[in-house]
Formats: sequence, C-alpha cells, structure tokens
Amino acid sequence: MDIRYIRLGIMALVAGWISAAAAQTDPLPSWNDGSAKQAIIAFVTDVTREGSADFIPEPERIATFDNDGTLWIEQPIYVQFAFALDRVKALAPQHPEWKNTQPFKAVLEGDMATLAAAGEKGDVEIVAMTHAGMTPAEFQQTVKEWLTTAKHPRFGRRYDELVYQPMLEVIAYMRASGFKTFIVSGGGIEFMRAFAPERYGIPPSQIVGSSIVTTFERRDGRPTLFRLPKVNFVDDGPGKPVGINQHIGLRPVAAFGNSDGDLEMLQWTTDAGKRRLGVIVHHTDAEREYAYDRQSKVGRLDKALDAAALDRWTVIDMKRDWKTVFPAGQEDRGR
Amino acid sequence: MDIRYIRLGIMALVAGWISAAAAQTDPLPSWNDGSAKQAIIAFVTDVTREGSADFIPEPERIATFDNDGTLWIEQPIYVQFAFALDRVKALAPQHPEWKNTQPFKAVLEGDMATLAAAGEKGDVEIVAMTHAGMTPAEFQQTVKEWLTTAKHPRFGRRYDELVYQPMLEVIAYMRASGFKTFIVSGGGIEFMRAFAPERYGIPPSQIVGSSIVTTFERRDGRPTLFRLPKVNFVDDGPGKPVGINQHIGLRPVAAFGNSDGDLEMLQWTTDAGKRRLGVIVHHTDAEREYAYDRQSKVGRLDKALDAAALDRWTVIDMKRDWKTVFPAGQEDRGR
Repeated sequence: MDIRYIRLGIMALVAGWISAAAAQTDPLPSWNDGSAKQAIIAFVTDVTREGSADFIPEPERIATFDNDGTLWIEQPIYVQFAFALDRVKALAPQHPEWKNTQPFKAVLEGDMATLAAAGEKGDVEIVAMTHAGMTPAEFQQTVKEWLTTAKHPRFGRRYDELVYQPMLEVIAYMRASGFKTFIVSGGGIEFMRAFAPERYGIPPSQIVGSSIVTTFERRDGRPTLFRLPKVNFVDDGPGKPVGINQHIGLRPVAAFGNSDGDLEMLQWTTDAGKRRLGVIVHHTDAEREYAYDRQSKVGRLDKALDAAALDRWTVIDMKRDWKTVFPAGQEDRGR
Repeated sequence: MDIRYIRLGIMALVAGWISAAAAQTDPLPSWNDGSAKQAIIAFVTDVTREGSADFIPEPERIATFDNDGTLWIEQPIYVQFAFALDRVKALAPQHPEWKNTQPFKAVLEGDMATLAAAGEKGDVEIVAMTHAGMTPAEFQQTVKEWLTTAKHPRFGRRYDELVYQPMLEVIAYMRASGFKTFIVSGGGIEFMRAFAPERYGIPPSQIVGSSIVTTFERRDGRPTLFRLPKVNFVDDGPGKPVGINQHIGLRPVAAFGNSDGDLEMLQWTTDAGKRRLGVIVHHTDAEREYAYDRQSKVGRLDKALDAAALDRWTVIDMKRDWKTVFPAGQEDRGR
C-alpha cells in the first residue's frame, strides 16, 4: 500500500505554523472579526479551560467536519462526481460499447440532462465501472493520479487546492486545543482517504464516509481486499449520526456542516444539554466562490438553515466572515 | 452519554508505570525470557529505529489486537455470551412466557445442550432480547453494571479483571513506541466500548467489532440512535481485514490473535513483503488459565496454528512465556 500522507500537506502546515506562531494572539488569521469567529474561539476557550463550567475532558473533545462544501469546494458538481465522469472518459477506449449504452453515452457526449434523467440507477452503473472491481489501494492510487491532473472548470486549479483556508485554520486550532478531528462526509470513504490525510492532517482512521461493499478474497493465493459494485453504507443525513456512532463511538461536541445532509449530525451533536458547537458554512460569496442555499441541487441548505436559527448554531457568512477563501496567494489564479 | 473511560484502568496504569520506569531495561516484566518476548521486542526496536532497513514511519505503526482469548479470558464461554445469558435471567420476570419458549426456557433452566441445539437462530433471538431495543448508551450502561457484579465461575473475579497482564504490557509498550493500538474483535463493538477504553486505554474510535444495525430516529422530538435486532457486520475471520479497512484504512504492521477467527487478519498483516509481526497467543496453561487449541469449541486454534508455522508468526506459549497471567497479586484469589 502506497502511503504518502506522512507529510502533512503544505496548506495544513501553513495553517499549523500560523496557529503555533499566533496562538496567543489570533488562531484564525484568515477570519474577519465577527460573531462566527468569536463563537468558535469562545467555545474552544471555554470548554478547554480547567475549572470552567463548560470544561470538556480531552478524550471527549470530538469534532466532526463534513467535507464537500465545508472543507473544500462542491460546485458546480461534487468533486467525486467529476472524478467519476473523467474516469468514464478515460476508460472509454476499453469499452467501445459505451458509445451506444446509457448512461455512459451521455457522459461521453457531455449530455448532462440525459445523465441526470438516468437518476440513481445511472449513478450506480457509473460507480460500478469507476469505483469497484479493484482493491482499495488501487482505487486510491487512481484518485491520487486524477487529482494531480484534473482542474476545476472555473478556477483552473487542482481540486485539492480548492480547500477553505479558514477551515484549515479551524482544524489546526481545534487539534492544538486537544480536539480529535474527524471528517464525516457523504462522500466515499476511500475517495477521501486518497487526499484528506495529506490535505487536512487527518489520518485514514478518522475519516467516516459512504462506502461500497469490500470483500476479503485470496487472489493468486494472496490475501486481498476487493471492492464490489454494491452500496454498503450511505453516510449522509440520518446516516451521519449512525456512521459517527459506528466509527467514533462518542457523540461529538462540535460539528461543522453546510447542507441539509448535515442536519441530523448537527442536531445530534448539539442536543446534549451542555455547551456544544454547531456550525454551518453558508456559501454567500458568488465573487470568490459560489452563492447558494435553499434552491441548490448540490449542497442544498434549507432545513438546516431553519434549524440553525432555532438551535442557535453558528452560521458562517462566507463573504463577510472569511478574509480569504482558498489558501493564500493563489486564490485568483486561473479565474 | 456517561463516559468513564477518561481514567485509564488501574491495570493499564500499572503496566504504563512499569513500562515507563523500566523502558531501558525491560518493557515486558511479566514475560519470561524466551523467543516470544524476544521477537516482540526485536520487532518494535527494529521498526522504530531511525535509519533501520525495517523502519516504519509513525503514522503507519498500526497494531491490531483480537480481544477474546488474546487480551482477556474466553473460557468456558465468551464473556459476552455470559452477559447475554445473565440478561435473559434478569429480564425473565418481565417475560413469564419465556418459561415455555425456547431458547429462553433452556437459558432459564441452564440446559446448555438444548441451547446449543437452538444454534444460530437461538443466538439471534437471545441477542435481540438482550442487545437490541435500546440506545447504544443504554446498552453500554447495562454492560457496565453487569461487569460490576458478574463473576467468572472458576476464578470468582470480575470478568474485566481477567485480562492478561503480559498483553497489557505489550499494548503499553507498543503505544509508548509510537504505535496506534486497535482492538479488532469478533465481539460486539458496543459491548467492548463499555470496558475496553478504561481497561486497555484504547479509545472507542479504535475499537473494531461486530455490530447490529443502529438507526437514527426522533424519539419525543429528540435525535436518538436505536439498536435493532438485525446483524450489521460480523468482524470475524475474513471479516477482520474488511473491518480493519473500513475503520482504520491502513493495513496493520502488527497483529495479535489466538484463534482461527484471527487467521485472515494475521495473513493480511504479514503478507506485505516487509518486516511485520504476527503473534498467536497459544493457551497452554490449564493450571493458571486454560489449555485448548485444535479441538476447542470456543476459540479454536487449528488452521491458524498451522499457518503460524508456515508464515513464521510468533506463537506465545502461555505456560512457558508468561510469568503471570492475570494482573499481579490477585491471580490466585477465588480459585
């Protein structure tokens, strides 16, 4: 197994240096002063101060972060979906029949309307051809290679550069404050493991996500894991508390999300009768990133926005609260 | 959620103190000198020494431990099965119909032959009545309370005192050497979470086990997890590499087991073409614990014993290799 996550990613390192150097002054330098920044710092300060009424012992400091739209870009389509479409194109020469077979025909012709009409059945067929039929290590290698070449259609940058600098700072800040940080995403667990350890400094064992069935087999006499084209677990919506319970075994004390897929995770986290932190990233910045919420097909934020007001979660206004969106110095490149 | 694991257990602490005090001299004081002790120390020394040909970077130092028969006693019946039988008896007053309904009748009458004949179907019914129909927190509380009162039939001690002192030392030693230690057991993940964090100092997120389906529901308007009487995952045999991949996301570099249920985990761990450690606890001590292997119904060690010779795993001869079995000073109490 090719493991490269032992180096933290450059961005995580930068965030770490900033955090270490500025710990006493400003742990979140890419944030404008405002209620969101204050709420995060006040929570971390209060629950980590010995003798505080809100003190949380270190083993219980579990913080969960959604990935798509919370830690990195999810528009105009989920990054994992962009990967799947590119894989269909890359594999097409080995499958001449796809020219006349849906949903592959639609992918090859860029016919997104037909692709959308193929619905879940179409998605499953694409996942089967692009995500299954290999070992987890082989799949991760495919994802890693794709990430080195694929570019975001609007920003012209690698997808794994389109992570949110302010959120990297939150992860580093919380980790430096004794929190164990987990990703809890609707995205594929093995897809994320291909970049998240290096990008966010979060080890593979602290990544929770959706999965397909993986089996143990002997191939040429050697013990091997093999990915099958069958859904194992959907880590979205009500699945997130279930996935958290299965993988982490503790109820988080802080949770960060951005869409209705995070509603149950945030509700379960904050319904504890104790000081807790629920945070929603609200995409309000069409200039520097995207602006979307109640009507969006990708990352719809509707019920969770109503719940945020009711349950007094912190809502980040990206345009107002973030000084920078993507890692510093590169955010305007290629627009 | 009632979380008590923030203190390490007394035994883990003792092991930790011993390990810290004697790190330069003897990290495994409850072990007799011999090939097993030497193999474990040589492995840890070689893979943690910078510049060594066998050096393993810290993030890849994943060690997995089976629980039943590897970290604590599993005879004459699995502890979790003893719990289930006791729960049937405790719940019987609320279920008068059980007096005439199998497999409950057999449990109440101590008729183990009829119970065994009820097979898997009977087991599932017992699990449904004793493990499901409650939240994970409620279930863990039930297990914790049971552990404070239940006694092992031969040793007359709490089950969670019947852990293996030499293995506590191995866990502490490996952790002090930069290994992340995980439990990977055929036992129930939530059952283990009730005692393993306190006993072994291993957090809930580093426990992998079998599970029943858990769902997210709203009960009286509050977000709640609920355990259903349906098998979700069996973390045994070929399920162990699958569970490891799902939860840990890395192939271990060291694995400890004691039965055929650990065969695939050990094979997958050691089939890496690099320095790896596979260890089998062979129960050879009828005096101080039990002696069993190829013919045993509980914890059968047959194929894995053959594989150990073939794959050059380290086989611990409990009688010869362990100075003490259970934590010091109490092991003869109540025999």
